[in-house]
Amino acid sequence: MTLVLCDLLGRDGYRFSPYVWRTKMALAHKGLAADIVGITLTDKSALSGWTDYRKAPVLKHGNTIVCDSWHIAVYLEENWPEAPALFPDRASLSFARFLNAWVVSDLYPLLLPLIARDVLDHVHSGDRARYRATREERFGRTLEQAQAQRESEAALFRSRLDPIREVVANSPFLCGDTPCYADYILFGLFQWARCTSAFPLLDHADPLYAWRREMLDLFAGLGREAPGYPC
Amino acid sequence: MTLVLCDLLGRDGYRFSPYVWRTKMALAHKGLAADIVGITLTDKSALSGWTDYRKAPVLKHGNTIVCDSWHIAVYLEENWPEAPALFPDRASLSFARFLNAWVVSDLYPLLLPLIARDVLDHVHSGDRARYRATREERFGRTLEQAQAQRESEAALFRSRLDPIREVVANSPFLCGDTPCYADYILFGLFQWARCTSAFPLLDHADPLYAWRREMLDLFAGLGREAPGYPC
Repeated sequence: MTLVLCDLLGRDGYRFSPYVWRTKMALAHKGLAADIVGITLTDKSALSGWTDYRKAPVLKHGNTIVCDSWHIAVYLEENWPEAPALFPDRASLSFARFLNAWVVSDLYPLLLPLIARDVLDHVHSGDRARYRATREERFGRTLEQAQAQRESEAALFRSRLDPIREVVANSPFLCGDTPCYADYILFGLFQWARCTSAFPLLDHADPLYAWRREMLDLFAGLGREAPGYPC
Repeated sequence: MTLVLCDLLGRDGYRFSPYVWRTKMALAHKGLAADIVGITLTDKSALSGWTDYRKAPVLKHGNTIVCDSWHIAVYLEENWPEAPALFPDRASLSFARFLNAWVVSDLYPLLLPLIARDVLDHVHSGDRARYRATREERFGRTLEQAQAQRESEAALFRSRLDPIREVVANSPFLCGDTPCYADYILFGLFQWARCTSAFPLLDHADPLYAWRREMLDLFAGLGREAPGYPC
């Protein structure tokens, strides 16, 4: 049965959704391929007939529609139990569940203002006005004003990473010697930045830099080959 | 060989150090007993001859001195491998390592101002002046001023718990069906509050409330029996 993945389209070949990147890495981890359909922020017609849910990723597997990257990961794990595990044990499931919430609540809001002006240059042409308006309303300042402060504001984002830095300073991947879904959650965030912005988030001596390099190498360079910026 | 644990003494029988609670739970998990010696914030002479390190917990095992709750946990795991595991797998070690940093960097600073005035009433009599001075310098306001704001400021502390709330809403303990060291890290923070303050941190419907109740029941109610306040 064919898998179809609904992705968020940027301009040209740019594909930067942090949530879709989680799913793309999870599919590759399971050795699965999926056809891609696309939505934009302003045109979600590709999902019509699938679901009323309106955010990528959405996975279609036969007649089954699975919305939200977390639910997709759980679905893949349950339906392809013989393929490499995304959650090899209960602790890795708990850690991933924690990160699934923490990355969105504690990291994403700090990273967004640093790169939102850059993201604007990579959204689909029909999305530019909407993207600017919604983000500027959230920030209470223009994208340019936010970006002008990023050298100083990046310090808080980087320090908030300290707990995860402790982990990768002591382990190749978040749950051991091989990557699992917890890694893909965090990687999605960095890949969102890498596909939209040349702003350097991590110093070369940072243990997270080495971890990200390993993540970019996975699956024949799936993340590295995607249109984006060296980092 | 006898184990001796250096604890932080409060007034009377109050023993509230969040870091020593991690170690007390870890020792109980391993089925180990330890003699207790005590320091206060202003009198650390019990550690003289042991180490220049000046914070509880410190563990003495024969001629071996182990400082810092994290290193003690690792030491117990390495030296009592046949006893129940504190880190049953690599993911539980990573998750614990993350929480060891996150609880201190992200939770402790938000909880401290809420209860510091209450903690003052439980420190050793010789420590009161020092405790007040150091905390008030850190806060830039008096302990009473901080406490006066706690009803509103508690909201941020509670919301910062959301990622861990996701975990315990789906699992009895942080890494599965039995407690492990990750649980003791988080429990130490709540036990610090419980042993010093009647301020209610968690609503009864909160999944973390049920988790904490289970933690208080462990080891014949080791945490529950300690002098403190119902919560």
